[in-house]
Amino acid sequence: MNSGERFLAACRNQPVDRPPVWLMRQAGRYLPEYQQVRSTSDFMAMCHTPELACELTLQPIRRFGMDAAIIFSDILVVAEAMGMDLSYGESGPALAPAVRSRSAFSRLRPFQPERELAYVGDAIRLAREQLAPEIPLIGFAGAPFTLASYMMEGSSGKDRVATRELLYRDPALVHDLLEQLSASVAQFLAFQVKCGAVVVQLFDSCAGILAPGDYEQFALPYARKVIEQLRPLRVPVILFVEGIGGILEKVRESGADVLSVDFRIRLADVRRRVGSEVALQGNLDPAEMFGPPERIRRRVEELLAETQGRGHVFNLGHGVHPRTPLEGVHAFVQAVKALGG
Amino acid sequence: MNSGERFLAACRNQPVDRPPVWLMRQAGRYLPEYQQVRSTSDFMAMCHTPELACELTLQPIRRFGMDAAIIFSDILVVAEAMGMDLSYGESGPALAPAVRSRSAFSRLRPFQPERELAYVGDAIRLAREQLAPEIPLIGFAGAPFTLASYMMEGSSGKDRVATRELLYRDPALVHDLLEQLSASVAQFLAFQVKCGAVVVQLFDSCAGILAPGDYEQFALPYARKVIEQLRPLRVPVILFVEGIGGILEKVRESGADVLSVDFRIRLADVRRRVGSEVALQGNLDPAEMFGPPERIRRRVEELLAETQGRGHVFNLGHGVHPRTPLEGVHAFVQAVKALGG
Repeated sequence: MNSGERFLAACRNQPVDRPPVWLMRQAGRYLPEYQQVRSTSDFMAMCHTPELACELTLQPIRRFGMDAAIIFSDILVVAEAMGMDLSYGESGPALAPAVRSRSAFSRLRPFQPERELAYVGDAIRLAREQLAPEIPLIGFAGAPFTLASYMMEGSSGKDRVATRELLYRDPALVHDLLEQLSASVAQFLAFQVKCGAVVVQLFDSCAGILAPGDYEQFALPYARKVIEQLRPLRVPVILFVEGIGGILEKVRESGADVLSVDFRIRLADVRRRVGSEVALQGNLDPAEMFGPPERIRRRVEELLAETQGRGHVFNLGHGVHPRTPLEGVHAFVQAVKALGG
Repeated sequence: MNSGERFLAACRNQPVDRPPVWLMRQAGRYLPEYQQVRSTSDFMAMCHTPELACELTLQPIRRFGMDAAIIFSDILVVAEAMGMDLSYGESGPALAPAVRSRSAFSRLRPFQPERELAYVGDAIRLAREQLAPEIPLIGFAGAPFTLASYMMEGSSGKDRVATRELLYRDPALVHDLLEQLSASVAQFLAFQVKCGAVVVQLFDSCAGILAPGDYEQFALPYARKVIEQLRPLRVPVILFVEGIGGILEKVRESGADVLSVDFRIRLADVRRRVGSEVALQGNLDPAEMFGPPERIRRRVEELLAETQGRGHVFNLGHGVHPRTPLEGVHAFVQAVKALGG
């Protein structure tokens, strides 16, 4: 099997010669070649410039040979496309003005990905041309709740108090925002597929801050809406929820083809709890990349034993840490590739 | 039943007239009377001065009438007592020098709580005198892994990369540190009991950063050691692990009488997974305190339905947020008290 066949088969829970491997945030700050581009370019400029986004997408594939590339972009480009001002500083993203009122909501612009996010489409087309044909390209977007939370906070807002105050005090406004985002995100992902993405990942990175009842009300239904709208395209959808351990069975109800699982739960326990019909992605602790290579190889063997190699995409349980040593990533990718025998 | 009888019965999984209620970090920054003390006193000075610590312990009881008081202190006083320099700044605690080598470890001082932490004992005795006799006083400490992690980081180190590098690269050193901390923490809690605490809580706040295999190696055995050493005192032990959803069944093996559960899992699911012989504490989302009082009352009713009121201590699933509105806390405590009929 080549990388593309292997990756799509694993996402569809079909037999593979060995599980495929890629890493969340594999195109990122831990790479010296990324830092070189970054040294002369603003973060948002790298997202906005198709040639740069394409180059950053290819860098980890060139160096490590993962089984899939993910387009270099940012989950917040949708908020920017809806008219918010987006910038990145020392303390992470800033989005202005924060959407905390009906009037701020009504000022959001109507959204057409072909128009406002054409640069993402161009980057995908360029990367598709430049990648080896057998390497699949992953598109992605922030899930509606996660996007809404950033838009309500106006920042990465560690405790996300503003989000919760709005959920509890003006749920109708929050639901209206989530509805609009569900449509936008679905359109955006469909656009990415049209441009060349063969798998898409929805990042519901903030949904794990919610108590289960709130997750069921404010996050799950909207992730499900996006996934349902993508169904006719027959492209596998991966759903990542940070802090999934307590609500696995609910996340399963999203209809995602692949659940991307954080590292604080054993994949064997996940499999037992969600059954055998959904594929899993993950879940090595990104901190393992800082450990000795022989430990990384042992952990890969342990993960394989937990999943039996079926319906599993090897990945980390969270994004690559910016200070990750290159030899850790190399050891991880090579250890998975060695499973092929 | 009075508060003390109710609280001890709930911790022991025995019948109660209604579940007791207190809040993690109830003695804290959200209280104007706390802010008043803090305005003329350094944070560590408040810990070190028994009269101030006693006053801060009593403040939430006076204002809200919780069923239990928890002594005002800090989980890092044990590290300070072992010779580390502890201070609190804008970005949280700083502990110096960080313990990242055998030589730094060997410079830690032998520890006798009666000597280095006499001020905690004095605060407990004072608070015991001034509290109404029926209000139980909770003692607490950081669990060995959590203390070790702060000591290795030297700070609250968001990603805790230093911790993990040491776990993977020098596990023998980490185990030696954890052994020493287990003995120290057990002695410290026994000392608090001698001074008047009738229940103790172990905070393993950082253990949730670990993948399950690491939790089983580096956190669980040492929490269990502490709990075993306290067993002869016949004092209920509450264990809090942040991010417990994926590893509940393992945390159960600690032998704690009460599992304090974060808010990202339903107590009904916890009960199903851990069985009926352990008591539970929690787990309202602290963000609910920002919502309308009628919603808080409804959530209290829902939690009661999940636990059936048996073996349950009402609490938050995490500490009170510093910006929490007083009326939220009031509504929560009153709603639980109203369950008594």
